[in-house]
Amino acid sequence: MTMDKSEKVSKGAIIKKGLVIINTGDGKGKTTAALGVLFRAWGRGMKVRMFQFIKNTGSNYGEQRAAMKIGIPILALGDGFTWRSKDLEQSGMLAAQQWENCKEALLSGDDNLIVLDEMTYAMQFGWISTGEVIETLKQRPEMLHVIITGRGAPQELVDYADLVTEMREVKHPFTEQGIKAQPGIEF
Amino acid sequence: MTMDKSEKVSKGAIIKKGLVIINTGDGKGKTTAALGVLFRAWGRGMKVRMFQFIKNTGSNYGEQRAAMKIGIPILALGDGFTWRSKDLEQSGMLAAQQWENCKEALLSGDDNLIVLDEMTYAMQFGWISTGEVIETLKQRPEMLHVIITGRGAPQELVDYADLVTEMREVKHPFTEQGIKAQPGIEF
Repeated sequence: MTMDKSEKVSKGAIIKKGLVIINTGDGKGKTTAALGVLFRAWGRGMKVRMFQFIKNTGSNYGEQRAAMKIGIPILALGDGFTWRSKDLEQSGMLAAQQWENCKEALLSGDDNLIVLDEMTYAMQFGWISTGEVIETLKQRPEMLHVIITGRGAPQELVDYADLVTEMREVKHPFTEQGIKAQPGIEF
Repeated sequence: MTMDKSEKVSKGAIIKKGLVIINTGDGKGKTTAALGVLFRAWGRGMKVRMFQFIKNTGSNYGEQRAAMKIGIPILALGDGFTWRSKDLEQSGMLAAQQWENCKEALLSGDDNLIVLDEMTYAMQFGWISTGEVIETLKQRPEMLHVIITGRGAPQELVDYADLVTEMREVKHPFTEQGIKAQPGIEF
């Protein structure tokens, strides 16, 4: 059973600080849960921002359209790379460049919530140093919330994070029934 | 590694139909992932709608504020009940009433995506019949997507659903560090 939220606030209240949240695992919902928090925080008048490491701006994703409609800045600087990509050098350069943008935003104090979408892959490939990510997170403004998404979050980062959720696939229509990915639902 | 979405579409394309999606498990992200999909689908110009079974409209949650700002209808008809609630009879009546609203929407053909937030609890308590929920889902328009969230989704519903994700808590700041629930992030 869920707890009433106001109750949660009053009973759990000890420390108030910006959280580092990780959504990882092989299931669905990592990016969408981050989007949900972004949307919710925006609803409270918070300043929010998202950086995407895999998707690129030209791809016209549902979340990019939605964010644009309401003025949430999303910077997407990926090239849609996969394990089978041929030009990993270019992907790596883009990721490193995107991380510089993130770092600037993380340290600027301009935002209340920053989402670093699918950044784990860039750490796995070694394009971004996990140690540097953690160092930057430590230096960020105290109240800034950060959400990092993607499969296989490095253990070091999991250890540092405040809240880590694993999205586990129980049943998936693509693999089990061959159902087509649906615009608006999946991307 | 993630797959490029356009690739997913072309390779997995067999059936196109509305999906029944369940976000369950004890971890965070069940409602927020549903909100993310809602937001994304709205970005694509789809007609979306949300019903909440625990939260009530007066509570002024971040997602309700955000949805109101952009005109996404959210009907929240809960009374924030918990395992310790004293007036479960009232909670049950509200849930049954809310289910009537949901049923009407599910069968109306007016929407492209409907979220039934935290409805699993009402099924657990026996306020709503799981069999009737499944029957109603079967009768809905073919292309309507439905997302149901909440812990402990009934097995019968899991068996019927197309996509089921379990959100598993790996690390949680309330239990481990006693950090206060944060407006905009948690609610």
